[in-house]
Amino acid sequence: MTESGKPILYSYFRSSCSWRVRIALALKGIDYETVPINLIKDEGQQFSKDFQALNPMKQVPALKIDGITIHQSLAIIEYLEETRPTPRLLPQDPKKRASVRMISDLIAGGIQPLQNLSVLKQVEEKFQLTWAQNAIISGFNALEQILQSTAGTYCVGDEVTMADLCLVPQVANAERFKVDCTPYPTISSINKRLLVLEAFQVTHPCRQPDTPTELRA
Amino acid sequence: MTESGKPILYSYFRSSCSWRVRIALALKGIDYETVPINLIKDEGQQFSKDFQALNPMKQVPALKIDGITIHQSLAIIEYLEETRPTPRLLPQDPKKRASVRMISDLIAGGIQPLQNLSVLKQVEEKFQLTWAQNAIISGFNALEQILQSTAGTYCVGDEVTMADLCLVPQVANAERFKVDCTPYPTISSINKRLLVLEAFQVTHPCRQPDTPTELRA
Repeated sequence: MTESGKPILYSYFRSSCSWRVRIALALKGIDYETVPINLIKDEGQQFSKDFQALNPMKQVPALKIDGITIHQSLAIIEYLEETRPTPRLLPQDPKKRASVRMISDLIAGGIQPLQNLSVLKQVEEKFQLTWAQNAIISGFNALEQILQSTAGTYCVGDEVTMADLCLVPQVANAERFKVDCTPYPTISSINKRLLVLEAFQVTHPCRQPDTPTELRA
Repeated sequence: MTESGKPILYSYFRSSCSWRVRIALALKGIDYETVPINLIKDEGQQFSKDFQALNPMKQVPALKIDGITIHQSLAIIEYLEETRPTPRLLPQDPKKRASVRMISDLIAGGIQPLQNLSVLKQVEEKFQLTWAQNAIISGFNALEQILQSTAGTYCVGDEVTMADLCLVPQVANAERFKVDCTPYPTISSINKRLLVLEAFQVTHPCRQPDTPTELRA
């Protein structure tokens, strides 16, 4: 935390995992300071000694809060949910909570890790785009089918949940990697309904303290 | 569930994600039936129409319980924890819960997905072993450092938690991929202490209904 007691979010404007946490903080009305970690500049600021001491995984996001540092976006969101329960990001019913966590884990464990920067760097350059697209398409094929039975207005029923915090940044990744989203009408329409909400707007990669001028909107 | 009301676990003896759930079921004393899904036989039984209807991600584990089907191992364990809280697999203190989830997500999202079968198949055969080893080594480097500040007897303090359910199967994967674990004394000693516990023994890949005879112990 800062001297003023505010949590500190170590974030990169374009990181989909950081965006998940920014939405949670915004929805819960938690005031915080951003420390930008540029994943590309200086050969990657996440590899600096200072940042490695903070998160040995050398990844954003990390959140300093209540005297501890948490990394892994879903672990951060679950902690916020347990310590700042309003508004809730997990439904009350355990079966619906299971759906929310299943969708969140599918995206955070089954799609994003396979198309993130550190993995793509290990793939021959000419295959990188196809590699990322395959990971997203295979995940979205499953997700579209799952959402058809869980979704209401949003991913699970009619309340915004942790699953939605994972969905929107992942769809943005899909667009960046030029994945055709027309085969995914459920994903696309939920994404559209979420993107107009204030918490998703103010936390958007195009509106962060570290967003380069040419990408601002 | 079966007609007798028992939960059904769709599992593969060697799947580390299935093993996590088997340990949770054993610790909580939940009686269940196993339906083996052989990830290699018949060009992969997870690709069958019947199984895809059950889990569109075409992955094990999946658990039929209380009239629903849950996939994603951590979502399953969190559901079991909320509906069958004894013995608990998450500590009471939210900060310790955050540590448990952080370690679990690091393994389940940051290591395992990068070295699982479906990803390795996309890598040229001669690079597969190095690819898997790199994923494990990079994750273990971080994990070793994190455990030095969270561990007691086990990953977080002195109680067995969800983090331990992720650790043991991941160390088994490391051994399968011939990763030298001597640089990880904390990981190794926690793993050793856990492996002697009954719930880790009876759920071990060498003792499952679908373990091939030559691999049984």
